[in-house]
Amino acid sequence: MLINLDFESSEPIYQQLVFQIIEGIARKDFRPGEALPSVRSLASDIGINLHTVNKAYQQLKLEGFIQIHRQKGVVINPDGVPKADERYKQQLEKNLRPLIAESICRDYGEEEFLLLCKMIYKNYQGGRT
Amino acid sequence: MLINLDFESSEPIYQQLVFQIIEGIARKDFRPGEALPSVRSLASDIGINLHTVNKAYQQLKLEGFIQIHRQKGVVINPDGVPKADERYKQQLEKNLRPLIAESICRDYGEEEFLLLCKMIYKNYQGGRT
Repeated sequence: MLINLDFESSEPIYQQLVFQIIEGIARKDFRPGEALPSVRSLASDIGINLHTVNKAYQQLKLEGFIQIHRQKGVVINPDGVPKADERYKQQLEKNLRPLIAESICRDYGEEEFLLLCKMIYKNYQGGRT
Repeated sequence: MLINLDFESSEPIYQQLVFQIIEGIARKDFRPGEALPSVRSLASDIGINLHTVNKAYQQLKLEGFIQIHRQKGVVINPDGVPKADERYKQQLEKNLRPLIAESICRDYGEEEFLLLCKMIYKNYQGGRT
């Protein structure tokens, strides 16, 4: 599993880890049911604290991305990630609003903003198929 | 100045304050050069700590949204908010990537995502003109 952490970033390490696993699922690098390394082995592979990996896995579990079994270990949710529901859409809107408000203030046009989103979508869809 | 803080939210109060002022600029509720309340008066009006308002104002100043003068007090940047530059665009992309990756995982379609963005844009543009 390829994980790139930026130890200079102000973004917490566990948050970077959460996001990279979500990105891996979006890119279809990780398939439903696929095994992830145990907390211990991932922590040792990338040289970070057990607690940091555990925090990331717990958040991913809570949000339905992974399952954590005593015996089978950590796997990408075999039933697939829960689909977007009303609560998710509201949260997404809440997260997008500050980005769009700042873009407007900085004269970054709506067309450019939408193009950037499309480019990111394209970028994810270029992954393993 | 209308400020709505959610004291139940996990988002820090100073961050909510920063965002609401940015939203006010995006909506053109606040014009370049327009005065904002002093740290002291805003803190007392909304019943929060001086330090919280100060932290919000310092961040807004750092990012070019406001100026803080000893005598003139706090004003919306009279030269306008600095335009989007390369660094801003990179940061915006970095902020959008996790939102888009999660949307893909949750089967929230690209078209829906773009429509949501357009709806938010429209919403801001319905402000004072």
